[in-house]
Order: sequence, then C-alpha cells, then structure tokens
Amino acid sequence: MQVDVIASVNEARAIELANRTVIVIDVLRATSTIITALAHGASGILPVETVQQAKQAARDGDITGGERNCKKIPGFDAGNSPFEYMGESVYGKRVVLTTSNGTRAIHKASKADVILAGAFLNASECARTAYQLRKDIAVLCAGTQDEFAFEDALCAGLIVAELFRLGRQEQEMRTNDLGSILVSAYRHHEGAIPEALLACSGGMRLAKLGYANDVEYCAGIDTVSVVPVWVQQMMLPFAT
Amino acid sequence: MQVDVIASVNEARAIELANRTVIVIDVLRATSTIITALAHGASGILPVETVQQAKQAARDGDITGGERNCKKIPGFDAGNSPFEYMGESVYGKRVVLTTSNGTRAIHKASKADVILAGAFLNASECARTAYQLRKDIAVLCAGTQDEFAFEDALCAGLIVAELFRLGRQEQEMRTNDLGSILVSAYRHHEGAIPEALLACSGGMRLAKLGYANDVEYCAGIDTVSVVPVWVQQMMLPFAT
Repeated sequence: MQVDVIASVNEARAIELANRTVIVIDVLRATSTIITALAHGASGILPVETVQQAKQAARDGDITGGERNCKKIPGFDAGNSPFEYMGESVYGKRVVLTTSNGTRAIHKASKADVILAGAFLNASECARTAYQLRKDIAVLCAGTQDEFAFEDALCAGLIVAELFRLGRQEQEMRTNDLGSILVSAYRHHEGAIPEALLACSGGMRLAKLGYANDVEYCAGIDTVSVVPVWVQQMMLPFAT
Repeated sequence: MQVDVIASVNEARAIELANRTVIVIDVLRATSTIITALAHGASGILPVETVQQAKQAARDGDITGGERNCKKIPGFDAGNSPFEYMGESVYGKRVVLTTSNGTRAIHKASKADVILAGAFLNASECARTAYQLRKDIAVLCAGTQDEFAFEDALCAGLIVAELFRLGRQEQEMRTNDLGSILVSAYRHHEGAIPEALLACSGGMRLAKLGYANDVEYCAGIDTVSVVPVWVQQMMLPFAT
C-alpha cells in the first residue's frame, strides 16, 4: 500500500488521486468542524466553494455556515467554529458549509475513489477506515491560502504513522519523502499537540481572533469516532 | 529576518528569491560534493545543467564531473561521489559539474541576491554566513526529480534551527510553516542523522548502488568549514 502526503491543494494533481482513497485534512478548522457536526447529529454537510453557492444551495431548515478570513459570513447561521455545531440546533439538520481552504480541498479531491475527512479529532478511526478500503492512499493537506500549513502537516504525520502501525505486517507499506518527514515532525510533538498548534501561525491567528478554545479543541486526538465520507456531493458519516 | 524553506526546485518562484540570500541544499550529493571539492583545494566549481554544456565548458586541465541516475557520465573524469574530490588530483583544478538535481537548483536560484551551497557538512558555517549577510533567506531544497527529498528537508531543518539560534536576540525572526515542520523533524532525528539518511529513499538508492559510504559521509555535521558562494557562474569558497 502506497501512502503519499500532498503538501497543499495546489500540488494535488488528478493523477495522484485517481483510484485512491483521499484523506482531506484541514485541522483549523473545516474538517474538525465537519467531524464535530456529524458527531452531533447533523444529517450531512454540503461543502461548497463560494458564498454565492452556499446561498443558492441552502433550503429551508438547512444551517448555513462558514468563514472568510476566519470570520463568520454576514447573514449565515454559523461560522466555522466547531463549538457552533454541537448544540441541539444542529441535530438532524443539513449544513451548507463554505470555508477558505477546506471545502476547496474536498472539491479538488473529487477525482478520488473515496474521499474521507480527517483531523486530530478522528485520526485513528480515519486511518483505520482508509486502511480497510485496501487502496493506495493520498493524504491531502488543505493548507492556508494555497500554502503548506503546519497543523495539517502534523496531523498528516499522525495519520501516516497510524496507517503504518496498521500495516506493520505488510511488506509493501510505502510513503513518499514528505510522509516520512511528517511522521518525524509528529513524533517530535507527540504528547504536546495543543501547545504545538497554539504556537503555529494558523493557531496564533485564530487565538488572536478569540478562538484559542477552538485550537485546543481541534488538537484533541481521537476524541470523536466519526469519519466523514463524500457521497453525492455531501459529507456523511462513514458507516462501518 | 524572514527564513522560508522551499520544498523543491519546482516551487521556487523568482519573487521568493529576489533580494534574498538563497541556500541551495542537495545533500545527496551535489552540494556535499561541491563543499568537499572546494575544501580540498579545487579552484572553483562550474555547475552546468546538461552533459553537453559540461563538455563544451570544459577546458584543458579542468575536471569534468557529475552523474545521471546516480552514476558517472561516460567520458567524464569523475562521478558525483565526494570521495572522488578529495585527492591531490583536485587541488588547484576547476571542476565542471553536472548533476540531475543540484546544479539545476543552483541555476534556478540565479535571481537571488546571493547563492550559497549548504549541506550537513557545513551547516553551522553556512547558517552563520547567511545570517551575517542580514537579508531575508530562502532555503531551497533541490529534491529528487522535482520531488521533495527527505535528506534535503532534514538539513534545511538543521539550518533553520541554527539561523534561529543565531537570531535568538532578534524580535523578528520568522519562518514559514514548512520551516517550522522541518525544524521539528530535524529535532526528532538529532544525534542519529546517518541512520536517518541511510533509511530514507535517496540514501537507500545510493546504498544499493554501492555508495553507502557516501551517505554516511554526507550525514556528517559541521565536518567542513567551507561555504561555497555563486560568483560569475562559479561556486567559490566564501571569503569570511
């Protein structure tokens, strides 16, 4: 099994994604929020790329959510904080979500065989789900403004490490050099992920805007067992 | 001072290099070999991109060196092993060198203000030289076949860490997220760099071809004090 990490959306070429399981990671905060909303009973998440698309797609009873520059979009029901997707108000509802990087990464991955959403919150379960699909895997870091992002990279390192643990009996578990480097980087920060995320540029930006709690929450490993999967334009809980 | 790491030659955009000091890294083996040849008295290294250019550029008394697919080029005096550039035969000679990735990276950096060649061999001295130039720095990993390479990334992590140590009194030392991740990855392998290089894909490829000694030599930290600098198409020892 080949497990390659792709550094940012710009570097995702269709050829690398076809016939693979793709794990999209946007730790701060899109995939963390999608995982959280599904864990709290949202019926599904419809990720769209633009604000206009979100407005057009929203039907009565939907929740419109998302951000631009980390802030809630005017007129939307919710922003991109996972804490906004925990209450009763989410239960049974469809969420139409647009974020700066994460939703775009999901659409970019649409050539893939299967698309899963990963984050620290569901890292082990996400790795287990991807591993059981028995296809080569691409771990796509959403990044920030088309740039490599520390927090996604660290989470990719954890997920690759977990995939290798699951495949330890296999002769043919391979990763690319970026995957190897990210496993090393994850090992360096193992046991202190919240501190690492609060110190990185994406975490500091959110903390300055008052979202330090979001960063700490998103740094929690394996706190949620839901693995979102892309089915007919929607992210739904993977049925195991 | 801004210190950005660029993952591979393909990602080097001229705008990121202009007005900067660029440190080009090709640990296995171009920059390690260039550093070694200058340390052993070569009068200068002329890096060229193609075999044809090397043949055209070579004058009487020059050494022609380089590789394709890690192997010596037919008709050339030497390959790309640093051990070939240590003897008396190199002393006082100009070396015309063409390698698959490293020489291309040096040419790609030509928009930079100053170009230095870095490797584990001269990491601290290279960082000190770049730091003293007081410009923003780009650390350009040469990579392999346009892909991110583990060994260059690890060396970039060491050099960024060293630059931050030198600038620890400064308020404004900044790196990009890739730089932060690579410092973490370097820290994880600190004290065991030869083992890390022998286990990575580039190191294993060379070991299979009989160059395990090259890999171990190139993993030596601060064993050479020469810092090559690009002057009029040549790599010459930086005069401190």
